[in-house]
Amino acid sequence: MKSRILFTIMLGASLVVPAQQKTPVYLDVTKPIEERVENALSLMTTEEKVALCHAQSKFSSKGVARLGIPEVWSVDGSHGVSDEKIWDEWSGAGWTNDSCTAFPALTALAATFNPEMAMLFGKSIGEEARYRNKTMLLAPGVNIYRTPLNGRNFEYMGEDPYLASRMVVPYVQGVQDNGVAACVKHFALNNQEICRGEINVNVSDRALHEIYLPAFKAAVQEGEAWSIMGAYNKFRGEYCCHNDLLLNKILKQDWKFDGVVVSDWGGVHNTDEAVNNGLDIEMGTYTNGLTTQGHFPFSSYYLADPFLEGLKSGKYDIAKLDDKARRILRLIFRTTMSANRPFGRFVSPEHSQAAREIAREGIVLLKNNEQFFPIPSGKYKKIAVIGENASRSMVVGGGSTSLKVAYEVSPLQGLKDKYGETHIVYSMGYASGPSLYGREEPSKLNADSLVNAAIEVARDADIVLFIGGLNKNYFQDCESGDRQSLNLPFGQDKLIEELLNVNKNTAVVLLSGNAVAMPWVDKVPAIVQGWYLGSEAGNALADVISGEVNPSGKLPISFPKKPEDIGAHSFDKLCYPGDSVNVYYKEDILVGYRWLDTKKIAPLFPFGYGLSYTTFAWSKPTVDLDKVKAEGTVKVSFTLTNSGKVDGAETAQLYVSKPKSGVARAAKELKAFKKVFLKAGESQEVTLDVPVSSFAYYNELKSEWEVEPGSYNLILGSSSRDIKGNMTVNVQ
Amino acid sequence: MKSRILFTIMLGASLVVPAQQKTPVYLDVTKPIEERVENALSLMTTEEKVALCHAQSKFSSKGVARLGIPEVWSVDGSHGVSDEKIWDEWSGAGWTNDSCTAFPALTALAATFNPEMAMLFGKSIGEEARYRNKTMLLAPGVNIYRTPLNGRNFEYMGEDPYLASRMVVPYVQGVQDNGVAACVKHFALNNQEICRGEINVNVSDRALHEIYLPAFKAAVQEGEAWSIMGAYNKFRGEYCCHNDLLLNKILKQDWKFDGVVVSDWGGVHNTDEAVNNGLDIEMGTYTNGLTTQGHFPFSSYYLADPFLEGLKSGKYDIAKLDDKARRILRLIFRTTMSANRPFGRFVSPEHSQAAREIAREGIVLLKNNEQFFPIPSGKYKKIAVIGENASRSMVVGGGSTSLKVAYEVSPLQGLKDKYGETHIVYSMGYASGPSLYGREEPSKLNADSLVNAAIEVARDADIVLFIGGLNKNYFQDCESGDRQSLNLPFGQDKLIEELLNVNKNTAVVLLSGNAVAMPWVDKVPAIVQGWYLGSEAGNALADVISGEVNPSGKLPISFPKKPEDIGAHSFDKLCYPGDSVNVYYKEDILVGYRWLDTKKIAPLFPFGYGLSYTTFAWSKPTVDLDKVKAEGTVKVSFTLTNSGKVDGAETAQLYVSKPKSGVARAAKELKAFKKVFLKAGESQEVTLDVPVSSFAYYNELKSEWEVEPGSYNLILGSSSRDIKGNMTVNVQ
Repeated sequence: MKSRILFTIMLGASLVVPAQQKTPVYLDVTKPIEERVENALSLMTTEEKVALCHAQSKFSSKGVARLGIPEVWSVDGSHGVSDEKIWDEWSGAGWTNDSCTAFPALTALAATFNPEMAMLFGKSIGEEARYRNKTMLLAPGVNIYRTPLNGRNFEYMGEDPYLASRMVVPYVQGVQDNGVAACVKHFALNNQEICRGEINVNVSDRALHEIYLPAFKAAVQEGEAWSIMGAYNKFRGEYCCHNDLLLNKILKQDWKFDGVVVSDWGGVHNTDEAVNNGLDIEMGTYTNGLTTQGHFPFSSYYLADPFLEGLKSGKYDIAKLDDKARRILRLIFRTTMSANRPFGRFVSPEHSQAAREIAREGIVLLKNNEQFFPIPSGKYKKIAVIGENASRSMVVGGGSTSLKVAYEVSPLQGLKDKYGETHIVYSMGYASGPSLYGREEPSKLNADSLVNAAIEVARDADIVLFIGGLNKNYFQDCESGDRQSLNLPFGQDKLIEELLNVNKNTAVVLLSGNAVAMPWVDKVPAIVQGWYLGSEAGNALADVISGEVNPSGKLPISFPKKPEDIGAHSFDKLCYPGDSVNVYYKEDILVGYRWLDTKKIAPLFPFGYGLSYTTFAWSKPTVDLDKVKAEGTVKVSFTLTNSGKVDGAETAQLYVSKPKSGVARAAKELKAFKKVFLKAGESQEVTLDVPVSSFAYYNELKSEWEVEPGSYNLILGSSSRDIKGNMTVNVQ
Repeated sequence: MKSRILFTIMLGASLVVPAQQKTPVYLDVTKPIEERVENALSLMTTEEKVALCHAQSKFSSKGVARLGIPEVWSVDGSHGVSDEKIWDEWSGAGWTNDSCTAFPALTALAATFNPEMAMLFGKSIGEEARYRNKTMLLAPGVNIYRTPLNGRNFEYMGEDPYLASRMVVPYVQGVQDNGVAACVKHFALNNQEICRGEINVNVSDRALHEIYLPAFKAAVQEGEAWSIMGAYNKFRGEYCCHNDLLLNKILKQDWKFDGVVVSDWGGVHNTDEAVNNGLDIEMGTYTNGLTTQGHFPFSSYYLADPFLEGLKSGKYDIAKLDDKARRILRLIFRTTMSANRPFGRFVSPEHSQAAREIAREGIVLLKNNEQFFPIPSGKYKKIAVIGENASRSMVVGGGSTSLKVAYEVSPLQGLKDKYGETHIVYSMGYASGPSLYGREEPSKLNADSLVNAAIEVARDADIVLFIGGLNKNYFQDCESGDRQSLNLPFGQDKLIEELLNVNKNTAVVLLSGNAVAMPWVDKVPAIVQGWYLGSEAGNALADVISGEVNPSGKLPISFPKKPEDIGAHSFDKLCYPGDSVNVYYKEDILVGYRWLDTKKIAPLFPFGYGLSYTTFAWSKPTVDLDKVKAEGTVKVSFTLTNSGKVDGAETAQLYVSKPKSGVARAAKELKAFKKVFLKAGESQEVTLDVPVSSFAYYNELKSEWEVEPGSYNLILGSSSRDIKGNMTVNVQ
């Protein structure tokens, strides 16, 4: 009879519990995380460590069950918490408790130019993920908007690395305040969907560090993101999910990232590289041919049995495994095993309110001749609403961000609620086919009868609101494919012209995650860029259209007149979309307005642009120092006055240029911004702080950031093109 | 522009978070639970409160998502944590992370007569439920073993209310130490599966309070169980899931239960009664005809829309709703929203060890002529193992306790591991058909070829171990049906006789949750009662058979020679199984050994009985007081000596009788027990404390417990029939 039996029997029928063993360090939430990590690691077998490093289901990977270390459950996506899935399938599991709040897409968030909104966004979506017991939210996306054709731009934060950096940091912090890891994606250079699974991106070190990486760096170093997702594509010949330069050298060594690198789903291709080049968790791999009961066996993942075998044979160093396991344990202790993890909440009124606030701050008024907007309630008896996007769901489709939502207020519903049902007449005008999850091409309906019906409705109306744009179907704003043209699809351009023919009072509201061409731009009196606005889309649009909210969004992307005006489309096919093997970023650092401004090409609407229902007067700005050191900070100050009749917000933007430089420079680069609310008639002294270090360029020869001495121009504007003042400063 | 917008915009691009609102009381884990409950309740709508009161899926009910109050997720079952299910179906969801440790069935636990084992059991299974993120474990079951035909006896803790009480309390505490609610079931009087869904139990107040309720009362008052499950059957005309007397009067008023009453799945039948008679959460209701997409709509549950409508019309008092909501919130704050909820663990070596320890302490040695057991390794060259139960899974089937397990060591495997594969020859002998989940009747195979093959194997062997018994198929030890006979099924009796004909050295090992008849009892040299022993079944059996562990289990049930020897079978059909409308418990308090001893009927094996590989000498016991008050305690002392040659454990049992009583009394009733481990040759002074209050009977006229004054006999035994000493004590 063994001693333990002896012990328990001797206690007999008493209820005295055997003296509790001391809580192991890894279970002690009061202990420092690094101590807990080392303790847990010391208790684990090689097999258990390997099991941490790859999926066990479509959206989960193992913890250590015998030690009570929880599994890692991740969930899409960036603007809403996706539904529960069948264990090893993409399809939903048919639960009824997982219909989420849809927040605006990230282009809309970026358009707020308000980091407070990013914090509110992150906090709110993080609460939804926490209530749903997720470890990791697969968001946010911060790939730079390189071309308006990229099908996934709507998931990202625009074309400017500084703007994206300022917005991603509070988003990450807001999510992680809930004990849920943000997983910043897609690291890096996933700037197109065409051939995303294999295309090799060729880009200079300068463009890499100055344009494509800053938002990731800010997320890691300032936001302290706990995880990051590798991209599908290759960079310099290696897949980004196991890319030595990106993951080992830049992310983990230079940036000192101590979190987890997760692959994009199916983005891993090679065990040696996955082991050695910085990947920590492999997800979604397809293992052709090795099916078990219709599923791909997780044991055959690159970081599963092949990894284990290599460890046992001595091919791989156990230190590589321990590094991965440490990172994953750290993630778990930061989230599901942390002390005082809050409880989250789901589909709360506060989340609806947050979605609505973010949406209406992100809506951009592009044109407003003769104060077409706002349209106060009661001004018109009959408002014609035309366009499929007025009634179409914009949360379904688009790929992995497709959402199952608790509710979605369409623009049509929002306008009906605002103006009264009797004052709204709706006609669809065009039809694009059903909302599809992703990869199928929609049927192309083009029914003249729809056009004719819309024209008749428009003819009789006091005003016409055309609500169109793109949608979430394949070849629109959707994962795994790019748009095929800058033009509006489904005959919308022609329809708009025809509407104008019968009613000059036709304004255009565009819902899209991308810039579109506007051949009718000079003919319409007013244009609103509405993005994808989530559950509160219709309410937010109606708030702005009615004037209840004064629009304050600014474009986080340039709207070019035609694709060829953009750097990525100014070279040959190798520049975009590549030859299916390689793509060459020939425009280099000149992405977005940097190209347009440097090349002196007039955009349709410039980066940073957006109108208001009020007007603002800007005093001449001053700079506090003429001469500064490279470690210093310059302060630009001016007085901003709301010179109109309604309250409103303006976003002051400070751009920097270096006229004489040893390297090629963009005409200007955003280095600071501040959104300022002013009541009608109110004035405020506004100061923008700009650290001189942000004037640096990336010196490719030295592989480091360098501030050139000499004269810099500081350019204050209400957009990248509407300049309110110029200053110079000398860096010594 | 609304004031909140104003506020956030004024903060501009700074990263200052708006001053956090004070944490509401209900989210503050440092606040007393009752304050949190009242605060949460004050924030909830009537609809939200009603939503707490009924299922949203097969095994979950809503929390309050907008407030961050988690859902309630329950899981079967009493000896292992069941697999994940499809949202609204009984079938498994096909996850691969939910294969649990199977612990022994509760009859085996009861047979340990060791509350320490119950604590270890509860702690271990609670850890498994916690790791799986469950709020509530639908266990333990403590319905009294009234007839050996009840298909669900294996889930319960035997025939004696005192034994069940002592075992249920630490089980509940062990589970709940993990922040998981135990849900004690089935309250009450679910003592047969035939017609369980509607049978109306007629039983006296005395039998109710003295026999059928004490284990529930102990679970509630001593174990502080956080939830309890209503039974399917009726009691005095009302379904037990909404039974005014059981739930309102006895449970909530008299016992001051402040937890949640959950219905058994499909046990609710009426909104008025569900609202008024003490039910809190309705689960598993079938709503005939009202299907939605193949599912029954949860909104049509008795405590869903009909409840809400009644509240709104004033038919039901809001106080009824608030009481239910308070209880459910209290449960949530005690579990998923508690401070310092541990993390649990799943399929750990500690759990395997616990399962093995409990199993080997629960195994009962019934007969052991000429020291047939133990069988030391090497003693025999050829051991024949015969019988389907040696190799059959005993964790699959049986109804809701059917488990998906990480592993299960069969008796055959355990014996092979112990004695070496070459020394074991196996022949199945009989076949009962495939393991079925529940309700289907198994095919009845009876192949003479199996018998013949087994006989040939047995003939050549040094010894034969027949491993048979019942299984988990329908009409065996299985939910929703009772056994049809006390006899062993599948021709086992005949097979055993035939084995004896060719090999006298044939011992019988029975795996069952119920007593069986043994027509061959005098012919076999040795018998082991092994119950259902879980994942470690084979190891535990081999430990005992080999003598590595000295058996110490005691029968928690009487083994009658024939069914008619048991009270429930001594009357007409109305006494068991009833006429499909009513059943009358005509044996009254005389359940199990109380009947056999009072009626002087010799059992096959008595309650409390079990042999050891050693012998024990008992000194004459003494009682410390001749005269005691009703509030006093008597202490019975004696010296117990291990007079044999191996270490072992004996369980001293103290029974009480009242020879002269104003009411009918059982010949004896268990009032104390103590399991004592003694090394070979060791002696120990053993003291059993018996509070005089436990001498009480339930006075039906006064509706209260009453200790009659006068003389009581105290009977010390190693079983209910092997008496080691008698004492008397006078209660003044």
